[in-house]
Amino acid sequence: AIVAQLQSHHRRPTSQSLQGKTVWITAGPTREALDPVRFISNHSSGKMGFALAQAASEAGAQVRLICGPVSLPTPVGVERVNVESAEQMLSASLDGIQHCDIFIAAAAVADYRAAEVAEHKIKKQSGKDSLALSLIKNPDIVATVAALTPDLRPFTVGFAAETRDVIEYAQDKLARKKLDMIIANDVSAEGIGFNSDDNAVTLVRPHHVLTLPRASKHELARKLIEHLAAAYYDPATP
Amino acid sequence: AIVAQLQSHHRRPTSQSLQGKTVWITAGPTREALDPVRFISNHSSGKMGFALAQAASEAGAQVRLICGPVSLPTPVGVERVNVESAEQMLSASLDGIQHCDIFIAAAAVADYRAAEVAEHKIKKQSGKDSLALSLIKNPDIVATVAALTPDLRPFTVGFAAETRDVIEYAQDKLARKKLDMIIANDVSAEGIGFNSDDNAVTLVRPHHVLTLPRASKHELARKLIEHLAAAYYDPATP
Repeated sequence: AIVAQLQSHHRRPTSQSLQGKTVWITAGPTREALDPVRFISNHSSGKMGFALAQAASEAGAQVRLICGPVSLPTPVGVERVNVESAEQMLSASLDGIQHCDIFIAAAAVADYRAAEVAEHKIKKQSGKDSLALSLIKNPDIVATVAALTPDLRPFTVGFAAETRDVIEYAQDKLARKKLDMIIANDVSAEGIGFNSDDNAVTLVRPHHVLTLPRASKHELARKLIEHLAAAYYDPATP
Repeated sequence: AIVAQLQSHHRRPTSQSLQGKTVWITAGPTREALDPVRFISNHSSGKMGFALAQAASEAGAQVRLICGPVSLPTPVGVERVNVESAEQMLSASLDGIQHCDIFIAAAAVADYRAAEVAEHKIKKQSGKDSLALSLIKNPDIVATVAALTPDLRPFTVGFAAETRDVIEYAQDKLARKKLDMIIANDVSAEGIGFNSDDNAVTLVRPHHVLTLPRASKHELARKLIEHLAAAYYDPATP
C-alpha cells in the first residue's frame, strides 16, 4: 500500500524521474595506506553504488561515480572518477559540487587512517610481539557535503551499514549529520550486504521509515532511485 | 655464464625438473579482521605465486596453492586451498607438510593482526579524533616450516619484498629463519613487484646471490623454478 501511494506521488514518469538532474554517487571502500605495501580497508564491493549509478542513469540523470578501488565495470553513460583514500574521495566530492543536485554517499569510507604513513615498509620487530597503531579520524564526507551552504548543498543521502540496532543508528546518524535520507542495511544478515548480490534496506528520513523487501541489488537500486526522486521533488512524500 | 653453468647442473631434463616432487606455494595477501567489516591487508596480487604454481606444475610437480583472497584463476592441474588470515594460512601450510618436498612462501602474510577482533562494527566515536589500534604479531609461517624437524621439513623458500636495502634484508632473513633460499625483490621500483605483471628478483642462498633480469612474472617463474630445482637437487650448485 505504501509503494502504491508513493508511485502516485511521482511528478515525472517513472522511467525518467531524474531527467535533467545531476547525481553524484560515491562507491566502494577506501584504502588507507599504513606504509608503501600495507593498508586498512573494508569488505565493500561497490556493487550497491554501481547499481545506483546505473539506475540513476537509466532514470535520466547525469551521473558521476566517485569510487574507491573496485574492479567493477563502469555502467554505460556514467562518468567515473577513481580514488584511493578518504581524503582523495572528499576532494573529488567537493570539486564542482555546485552542479550536483543529489549526492548519494554509498562508499564505505574508512573512518580512520594512519596518523603517519611510513615512507618505507614497517619492519616486523623481533622481540616485540605487539604494535600500537596510531589512527586518526578521516574527514566525514557525507556530513561535509550536508553542511554546505544552501546554494551549494545537494539533496544528501547517506548509507548506514550496521550489524545491530540498524534503524536506531540510522535515525541518530540522519539527525547528527543533517542528511535528507539514509539507506540503512544490516550487514550481519545472511546473503545480503557487503559483497553479496542481494540487499534489503530501510529508507530512513526525518519523518518516515520505509523498509524495502530483499531483492537483487539492481532491482533494489531501481526502487531506491524512484523513492529517492519522489522524496527529492516532494519532501512531504511518505 | 652463470645461467649456462646452472643448466649443466640439472639432473633432470629442464621441462620435467620437478617430476615426482610435491611443491606447496602460498600466495596473495592475508586479511586480518579488525571487526566484521574492516580489515588490514596489503597490495599483493598473488600473481607471482600463481605464476610459480603454474611453472612448477609444468615442470612436473604436484602443486598445492594455499592462497589468501585473490581473484586469479587457478592454474590447470594445481590444487587450490583458499584461506583468509595468517593463522588459517599457517594451519593449511602444516596440514600434511610431511608430503611436501619444496615449500615456497610467496604470500604477503600480514605481520600483525588485531589483538582482539571486535564482534560488532567499531563505531566512530564523536569527540575522539584518534584511535590506538592494538596489534599482535602473526605466526611466521615460513620460519615455522623451516624450523620443522628434518623428517618433516621441506626445502624452504621465502620471499622478501622490500623498499630499500633489498639484498641485505634478504641475507639477514635467510640466516635468521634458516631458509634454503630467498627470492628478493624491490617493490619500490617502477613497474615491478606488487600488482604489476613484470618482476625482477635476486635469488639469495647461504653462499650465493644471483640477480635475474626483469621479465614477465610467467617467464621469471619458469626461470625461478629451474634455479630452484637445481638448488634443491644440489645445494652446491651456484
